[in-house]
Amino acid sequence: MTTNELLDSLRAIVGDAHVLAEGDLAAWEQDWRRRARGKALAVVRPASTEQVAAVVKACAAAGASIVPQGGNTGLVCGSTPDDSGRQVVLSTQRMRAVRAIDPANLTITVEAGCILQSLQEEAEKAGFLFPLSLGSEGSCTIGGNLSTNAGGTQVVRYGNARELCLGLEVVTAEGEIWSGLTGLRKDNTGYDLRDLFVGAEGTLGIITAATMKLYPLPAAQLTAWAAVPSMEQAVELLGLAHRTLGAGLTGFEVMGRFALSLVAKHFPQQRVPFVSAAAEAPDETPWCVLLENSDDESEEHARARFEQLLERAFEAGCVTDAVIAENLAQARQLWHIRESITLAQVEEGLNIKHDISIPVSRIPEFVRKTDALLAEKLPGVRMVDFGHLGDGNLHYNVQAPVDVPAADFLHAHEDEVNTLVYDSVRAFDGSISAEHGVGSLKQHKLPDYKSPVALKLMRAIKGALDPQNRMNPGRVLEV
Amino acid sequence: MTTNELLDSLRAIVGDAHVLAEGDLAAWEQDWRRRARGKALAVVRPASTEQVAAVVKACAAAGASIVPQGGNTGLVCGSTPDDSGRQVVLSTQRMRAVRAIDPANLTITVEAGCILQSLQEEAEKAGFLFPLSLGSEGSCTIGGNLSTNAGGTQVVRYGNARELCLGLEVVTAEGEIWSGLTGLRKDNTGYDLRDLFVGAEGTLGIITAATMKLYPLPAAQLTAWAAVPSMEQAVELLGLAHRTLGAGLTGFEVMGRFALSLVAKHFPQQRVPFVSAAAEAPDETPWCVLLENSDDESEEHARARFEQLLERAFEAGCVTDAVIAENLAQARQLWHIRESITLAQVEEGLNIKHDISIPVSRIPEFVRKTDALLAEKLPGVRMVDFGHLGDGNLHYNVQAPVDVPAADFLHAHEDEVNTLVYDSVRAFDGSISAEHGVGSLKQHKLPDYKSPVALKLMRAIKGALDPQNRMNPGRVLEV
Repeated sequence: MTTNELLDSLRAIVGDAHVLAEGDLAAWEQDWRRRARGKALAVVRPASTEQVAAVVKACAAAGASIVPQGGNTGLVCGSTPDDSGRQVVLSTQRMRAVRAIDPANLTITVEAGCILQSLQEEAEKAGFLFPLSLGSEGSCTIGGNLSTNAGGTQVVRYGNARELCLGLEVVTAEGEIWSGLTGLRKDNTGYDLRDLFVGAEGTLGIITAATMKLYPLPAAQLTAWAAVPSMEQAVELLGLAHRTLGAGLTGFEVMGRFALSLVAKHFPQQRVPFVSAAAEAPDETPWCVLLENSDDESEEHARARFEQLLERAFEAGCVTDAVIAENLAQARQLWHIRESITLAQVEEGLNIKHDISIPVSRIPEFVRKTDALLAEKLPGVRMVDFGHLGDGNLHYNVQAPVDVPAADFLHAHEDEVNTLVYDSVRAFDGSISAEHGVGSLKQHKLPDYKSPVALKLMRAIKGALDPQNRMNPGRVLEV
Repeated sequence: MTTNELLDSLRAIVGDAHVLAEGDLAAWEQDWRRRARGKALAVVRPASTEQVAAVVKACAAAGASIVPQGGNTGLVCGSTPDDSGRQVVLSTQRMRAVRAIDPANLTITVEAGCILQSLQEEAEKAGFLFPLSLGSEGSCTIGGNLSTNAGGTQVVRYGNARELCLGLEVVTAEGEIWSGLTGLRKDNTGYDLRDLFVGAEGTLGIITAATMKLYPLPAAQLTAWAAVPSMEQAVELLGLAHRTLGAGLTGFEVMGRFALSLVAKHFPQQRVPFVSAAAEAPDETPWCVLLENSDDESEEHARARFEQLLERAFEAGCVTDAVIAENLAQARQLWHIRESITLAQVEEGLNIKHDISIPVSRIPEFVRKTDALLAEKLPGVRMVDFGHLGDGNLHYNVQAPVDVPAADFLHAHEDEVNTLVYDSVRAFDGSISAEHGVGSLKQHKLPDYKSPVALKLMRAIKGALDPQNRMNPGRVLEV
């Protein structure tokens, strides 16, 4: 089949208007962080699962591979085409329907292209919480969230995207439709296909719809901000918070002083508790923690529990100062500081980003040792260290020394820094990709940091479900 | 390799005392419910993961297949050998070690043969809750729990065995060891191998150890027993309980009047609230619900929350009478009634058991329609209906009419009843095995009740990971 014959087939399936093969396709061909720019044979926008299946079959017949794409907000170059001009980008952006809400079953069934924020809003309208929450929620899609097993800020209580999913609808590499949209909480009739497609980054099939868990809306959500003297004591505070708040603990973020000083420096209108914009302020608290407490009873009750926790923490010496947000506006301001770290880094100049996880108990030692190693090899580097400590997930980013241009530093040291950090992660039994996935960015790193037996099993599965390697090739695994 | 050569190899690996090939092997060859009795080539009891791997390699070289076995408490004939005398039973009963407890990471790492109750006790000694709880916990093993993705009584809050597992160690069909014992809560470096082995019933590899989640011990656990006028209102009560208790709701069991009357009849020393032993007592409550509320604060607080819930439920008309246990002894008595249903059925005579799940919202209609169908086809049958309503899981058992001998009824009607119930389950988008698994008992039913696309994907995975079909053949899938 020629390229033109394939384009004709695709047009026949989804309509002329939804096969984009000319003009500026940057929105689909370039990743969000502008790390990769590819060239698609076409961007195809099916409107239904049946159309997705027909597109997959047409591509298979033409020997073209498929790159599924949701909101294209991923951070590992997993949803943009390579530069061959031979890959078809299959965008789910027209498949946004909420198919069903089942209040008594606590489930919502949505199509893959549904924007995460829309899903949250639809749930809330029905009186429920959909707890997945992350920075890009205004433009990422639930299909992408599931394909990358997205994490975010409430994992400590509700788990990753995987744990929130009860069922999937998937178009296989053969173009067949697996209708697994069960809303069942228990189903032991064979292998767990759902969790195999979740997190597979589109390399085994295309998620077209999902049934997700809903939770009762909490009666109140309170936010606190605490200064802690060391990472050891941040971990101790986490344990206290688990014991005191139980399932009420829905967020536990740690932020290093330098990361916060960048927010204070570049966004001076934001008032960062306990930290100033000064690059050198050795008397200041080295770490801050943002805690969120969701309460089924009332705001008053939530506040009393928080005060009890902080009292215990002061007594134990693991908190030196703390504020509890007085109202929702203050709580949003505190979260906004946390979320502004990403942009403050951009203002300061590019840095070398990591998305790692370590068993929580070993994080203090990991940070101490890895900081020291980096300081020894690259004197003057500045650590932008923050993340979801409740899940053992750090964004352990390395910023150039103060007088070195960021671009030069990256060019000269990115590989060296990555290797040093990843080797340290491996020594601490951690993961080199906690929540962002592998994509094409880290695919070549997996053989060095993943067990050969695991890789062999993964390759066997890929070979069984996508023997022609047409589903998002070049991502996750080298085949 | 001859049988004797294989036995010699096995003895060289695990020691003479742990290769059992003669004498009475009924404990390993017969399933707990005595539905199947096989004949093993030998029972092999390795003491370490390395020995498991060596046993798998020796069996592969000899062309013998392997039946992994934990506590042999399963209900679907999944862990006993067939009658060929050619299968090796690999028992994990010598692999019981707790390898590590990590309090700050909230994890415990145990070997597959660890008895569930020992795991619960070890966790409690360290100040934590391990929430998996089921009838056979005194003899089942965590390896079996994971291989069958066991459910039990606290799934409504903590999920099935799968949701409690963070990492696995597995011996593959090739006899290689996959060391995936990460205690990480976030790890997006490739396909979810963990969840593929969980629930695979030993057909893809042998789970040898696992890292499981721990939770803070609740400050108090309270139990209540409520009379509800209909299944619709039981579902309404569940919704109220979710909204009022939030994550405090850790148990929600429903029990039909006939099931409870059997307990009252056969165990008269147990006082069943709101139900008598009389076979006909039309004025009595048709359904009772057992609720458990786990509280992070105090017993007083738990009681206040429960009272608030029951007040709302009385107002809404979904509860007509209720008791809250005054103390732990009373709570245990209430749970004991629930757990005695199984034995009361045995006293009444064998019945036809089901382990089904249906979306919670559709359970009332399912029960009404299926009850009516059964009554029409088999006048006089008595429904022993009870289960974990919080998870949509019913043990929907069919007892012979009062004047028909149970064995005759089973012999004449078991297939007919299964087909009727399973067809109805399918019509309501349910599962024919909610928490017990497939084993060899339901393996031949899957093609009728599982989507062909799902079965094709499952077969492809089985073929990729165990191409010689040596791992627990005849279970889950016909290959």
